Amino acid sequence: MSSEEIARKRLSAIQQQLIHSTGPADLARERANASFDVNQMKAFFAGGKEFSEALDDAYRLIQRDPELYLGDEYIFDASNAEQREVTMRQLRRYVEVKDMLKSSLRVRAFHLAMCQYSESFNMRSYVADFLFPQALRLFSTSEQYNEWIGDVLKWRTIGCFAMTELGYSSFLRGLETTATFDKKTDEFIINSPSLLSTKWWIGLAGETATHAIVLAQTVVDGKKCGIDWFMVPLRNRKTGRLVVGVTAGNIGAKCGRNGLDNGWIQFTGLRIPRTNMMMRWASVSPDGKYHPTPNPALSYAPLIGERLETIIATTLAVSRGLTIACRYGCVRRQGENNEQIMDFQSYYVQLMPGIAGLYVANIIDRITRRKWDVLVQNVDDGTIFLNNVLDIHAISAGLKGVYGWWAVEILEFCRRSLGGHAYSAYNAIGECINDFGPITTGGGDNYALMGQTAKYVLKSLKMASDGIKLEGSVEYLNNVQEALSQSSSTMMSENEILDFKFIRGALAWLLIRKAKTIETTLTGGGVAAWNDNIVHLIKLAEIHTHHYILSEYLNGLGEYESTEYKNLLPILIQMGQLWGTYVMKSLLELFLEEGYFSPSQAKMIKKVFYDLCRKTRKEAIPLVDAWALPDFILKAPFGRYDGDIYPAYLNRVRSVPDCVGVSSYWSKYVKPLTDPDP
Amino acid sequence: MSSEEIARKRLSAIQQQLIHSTGPADLARERANASFDVNQMKAFFAGGKEFSEALDDAYRLIQRDPELYLGDEYIFDASNAEQREVTMRQLRRYVEVKDMLKSSLRVRAFHLAMCQYSESFNMRSYVADFLFPQALRLFSTSEQYNEWIGDVLKWRTIGCFAMTELGYSSFLRGLETTATFDKKTDEFIINSPSLLSTKWWIGLAGETATHAIVLAQTVVDGKKCGIDWFMVPLRNRKTGRLVVGVTAGNIGAKCGRNGLDNGWIQFTGLRIPRTNMMMRWASVSPDGKYHPTPNPALSYAPLIGERLETIIATTLAVSRGLTIACRYGCVRRQGENNEQIMDFQSYYVQLMPGIAGLYVANIIDRITRRKWDVLVQNVDDGTIFLNNVLDIHAISAGLKGVYGWWAVEILEFCRRSLGGHAYSAYNAIGECINDFGPITTGGGDNYALMGQTAKYVLKSLKMASDGIKLEGSVEYLNNVQEALSQSSSTMMSENEILDFKFIRGALAWLLIRKAKTIETTLTGGGVAAWNDNIVHLIKLAEIHTHHYILSEYLNGLGEYESTEYKNLLPILIQMGQLWGTYVMKSLLELFLEEGYFSPSQAKMIKKVFYDLCRKTRKEAIPLVDAWALPDFILKAPFGRYDGDIYPAYLNRVRSVPDCVGVSSYWSKYVKPLTDPDP
Repeated sequence: MSSEEIARKRLSAIQQQLIHSTGPADLARERANASFDVNQMKAFFAGGKEFSEALDDAYRLIQRDPELYLGDEYIFDASNAEQREVTMRQLRRYVEVKDMLKSSLRVRAFHLAMCQYSESFNMRSYVADFLFPQALRLFSTSEQYNEWIGDVLKWRTIGCFAMTELGYSSFLRGLETTATFDKKTDEFIINSPSLLSTKWWIGLAGETATHAIVLAQTVVDGKKCGIDWFMVPLRNRKTGRLVVGVTAGNIGAKCGRNGLDNGWIQFTGLRIPRTNMMMRWASVSPDGKYHPTPNPALSYAPLIGERLETIIATTLAVSRGLTIACRYGCVRRQGENNEQIMDFQSYYVQLMPGIAGLYVANIIDRITRRKWDVLVQNVDDGTIFLNNVLDIHAISAGLKGVYGWWAVEILEFCRRSLGGHAYSAYNAIGECINDFGPITTGGGDNYALMGQTAKYVLKSLKMASDGIKLEGSVEYLNNVQEALSQSSSTMMSENEILDFKFIRGALAWLLIRKAKTIETTLTGGGVAAWNDNIVHLIKLAEIHTHHYILSEYLNGLGEYESTEYKNLLPILIQMGQLWGTYVMKSLLELFLEEGYFSPSQAKMIKKVFYDLCRKTRKEAIPLVDAWALPDFILKAPFGRYDGDIYPAYLNRVRSVPDCVGVSSYWSKYVKPLTDPDP
Repeated sequence: MSSEEIARKRLSAIQQQLIHSTGPADLARERANASFDVNQMKAFFAGGKEFSEALDDAYRLIQRDPELYLGDEYIFDASNAEQREVTMRQLRRYVEVKDMLKSSLRVRAFHLAMCQYSESFNMRSYVADFLFPQALRLFSTSEQYNEWIGDVLKWRTIGCFAMTELGYSSFLRGLETTATFDKKTDEFIINSPSLLSTKWWIGLAGETATHAIVLAQTVVDGKKCGIDWFMVPLRNRKTGRLVVGVTAGNIGAKCGRNGLDNGWIQFTGLRIPRTNMMMRWASVSPDGKYHPTPNPALSYAPLIGERLETIIATTLAVSRGLTIACRYGCVRRQGENNEQIMDFQSYYVQLMPGIAGLYVANIIDRITRRKWDVLVQNVDDGTIFLNNVLDIHAISAGLKGVYGWWAVEILEFCRRSLGGHAYSAYNAIGECINDFGPITTGGGDNYALMGQTAKYVLKSLKMASDGIKLEGSVEYLNNVQEALSQSSSTMMSENEILDFKFIRGALAWLLIRKAKTIETTLTGGGVAAWNDNIVHLIKLAEIHTHHYILSEYLNGLGEYESTEYKNLLPILIQMGQLWGTYVMKSLLELFLEEGYFSPSQAKMIKKVFYDLCRKTRKEAIPLVDAWALPDFILKAPFGRYDGDIYPAYLNRVRSVPDCVGVSSYWSKYVKPLTDPDP
């Protein structure tokens, strides 16, 4: 054959491949690369075989139930009003399904599956079914709790959590809403004294909630005594009409989660019984004596739980995004040799650390949540609670910052990985991005939260320097003197880099060195100096949080060494190494400017990182398969398990009414141009 | 006064401030900080006083015209179908307004104002009024051009640009659509042989276009001879019905720009006259002889113009985002001392380089567009065109990559700067983000484009090493030997860092050093080695593009030294310095790992950067004011010029029908829970 004939033959072979979808064969080949048992990993990631099977049952249940399952018309093409309605339809059905399932494990699995299916459902059920009851538990006395919780569990009370005001978000001490005690009637009068005091962003307040837990300035005898929580009615249970004294409405179009009825509330002289003040910590007696809380931080405790939810939210959004991006990346072919685009460095270097990050987050979530659950169970023992709450508060804030920002970054990479097709709403990454975005600015703005973590780190470091023995996430700061005595790394080989302890040690060194510098900068500068160094303080919080994540991941893996999951340890360790080198790489500039790493050490770290990305890329598909998200949860033709993506994509586009045909405005706006009357 | 009384008094003063909006006073004070004449800067940024005044007229015209102006119902609350209709309403009116305005300067101003107002309008008018006519100019013979252009200018022909296919985006040689010559009838038969060959993403093909310029494989005597452009009818001008042989439809919901009717097209044996092949470069004679193009790159020339549009698109989106974020940042108060949040380092360090970046981009846009316009005017002289097209191609690709990705990053910062309120669609940053996103992946995926720029740089460097004298954007590579002989920077003082030539020199050094390393890595590795180093190649393209930007900014400023705008030079130089140090800072890791900067030099560069951010923060408001975007263009209550943001925000929320009231689904889905039948 002449070289021209060979070329033509090759071209024709390629074209045949392209005309007939090669996706299924591509994914099958990718699946054969697994070095681990995907089913076992699926069970591990889900938190156990039993839960994993319950999840599969839940998916089946959702797909079969006409009130839970969403038709095409409600996915990416529905109006905001339709989305709110259909989400409430799901919520009502969810209550019935819970009744049927009984087993708490199956209920948890069903709830998780629904949250994967709809972020709006997630938020709506979270507020009514988790945040509100937990706030009851944390703020009310046992008598109050017993009086109220029954209606909440039966959903006669649908509650919302009315903290944030239009003018005050992260700085809660600025809140303006008042609860003024009226001794004569033994009542509080709830008031919104200004426009800025309007409660804002309150989930479920827009259309659904019958009650709110309201954070307000308690006023007794004309004096503001403290900031406390009050149980306040909003709507008539029967008619849905607003209670007199309450103005509340829907907050309108949002950048995501439009099935959630975020609302705003204004109070105008609403009277509630004194006993609707939630009196576990602070209280007002009938004769107008104010008993303050032992610690104002207690008012914000449920926010710790909310912040820890960020890890779950990250997992939900990023696992969807990565599954779609990786499957597309392995099916899509492009370029001279008709390569799978997943083999381009620009793809796998961004997607593989994402995958590793989720495997790490999975364990961090379990470990951290366990810590928090223990604390909540011990809320009656104020001492235990107060002794531990600061450390977990700092960790929860740091995790929200690190994972929230990281998820935004990874999701943007997922978006770009779809190339031009990212622009289609039907490929679902846009939804992931829009639904996730508010997490970085809501529920405590990330900048503010990271500042709090930094403050905690600096305070702890000072204590350590003063010889006080630290515990919890800052324990490693006890070695401050030792760290400061070292001026550069002795690392000499690539193997050392793969050792978690090396990475942890380097992070600890960097944190202590940077913290010492900032400490000096801040000395005597007050609030102004703080504000002028927030970027560096945030970096401090990031390093501390990464230290926590890597340490706990190592601890977490240790728990599985003699379990059925021990076969998974090699790949899980690899995930940790990839994550660790990714973190190191992102901090190289700081390591280099401190002289901790030499230029050649830095290059070595990068090389190890790039090598790990390439090495793990082979298992991209098995690794995302183990997250086991069904096609209907992914919602994206490009994420299809079978890899046959293109026909599904065109079908989806054609399923919209009037996709093909003369547009309704042709004669009104086009014809006057193209065929004007003579 | 006791300290408690002092504290109470201070608190009360703060609260008074907060209850009564301090926004107008805050912005007035910020405006007084201007070191330059804002009106003069406004004229400068607009490209001249006359154009700036024409813009003001255009804004007035839009606001007064009921067919151009959008009511609240069409902003953030409209369905996709409504958005497409109302955008076409604007487009039709635009044609009439152009007729009225006559003066080309006023038409340009009016068009720009409309594009600022609606990105969907921007894209729709761009395709029909710019891209399509330019493609006619570049691809058709003079006779063809004269025959077709009349209908295009009268809008009897509404044209679209049908290049991309479902399965082939950046790799155009893979395109499958065929145009098969039928000698007997002197016709071409246009065919989409497979699903993947469906034309996809074609702007205006969804509902509006009567014609398409179609890129297809030309087949003569059963042989594929080349990839060429064909003029193809799509719809009947009178009825809007599809021509037989054409299937085309709307592409459905997208992540942004939903007023644009992106479409897909399939051809099934559509016959067009042979003379509908656009024959400026390649041609087929009646007897079936194929005359190839002198250079296949000519087929893609209009894409250069399209890529350069990225700078305008960046300016439109980012100027809106920054204006909103900066005004909000100066009005919003938070924290212990009730600070303006704009004074937090986390805000100004992210927003100020954004502002600087747009001032730099403004000049780069002018200079680069001028180069391109000269080339298009010289298209009849094939030699001039071909001699220069490669350099501007590489630059256009680099600029699209750098500005596209940068804009996404800055817009995300703008979003976060609104805190929780970023989540409201009414604050418009979400729209900016969604409308801009596709720019990074459409019109040539950024990864692919940056790879092309890198290839050009490596090729140029090789030529320079071989002693060939380079011109254009790569001229600086002539000094390759000199750069390689230097191993580290001699910079000793902060003042040196502020010198553009220092920054430019450092970038040149870094580029050459990194390029030499990559050259070695790639040697002999073929496509596989290329794919495995794309991340580093993209970095190369970035550095080269930044070198171009800084060099041309310096040249550009020089042009104003003896004009009426010379008073603006101090602040414009500061903008360039801020941008330059921002770029340097973002590359510090690479400089450090190459040993070009020592750790202390790196810290010095960062210090200069942070100092510049703080210093320029004072002028944030005057600097965004000079972009002169009216409130109705910004669309965001938080971006209001007068700073009275909160009442406008609540009013906007309340303007949605049924904001307050019982939801339509209460009795169906809520009442069964809260008030079940007994």
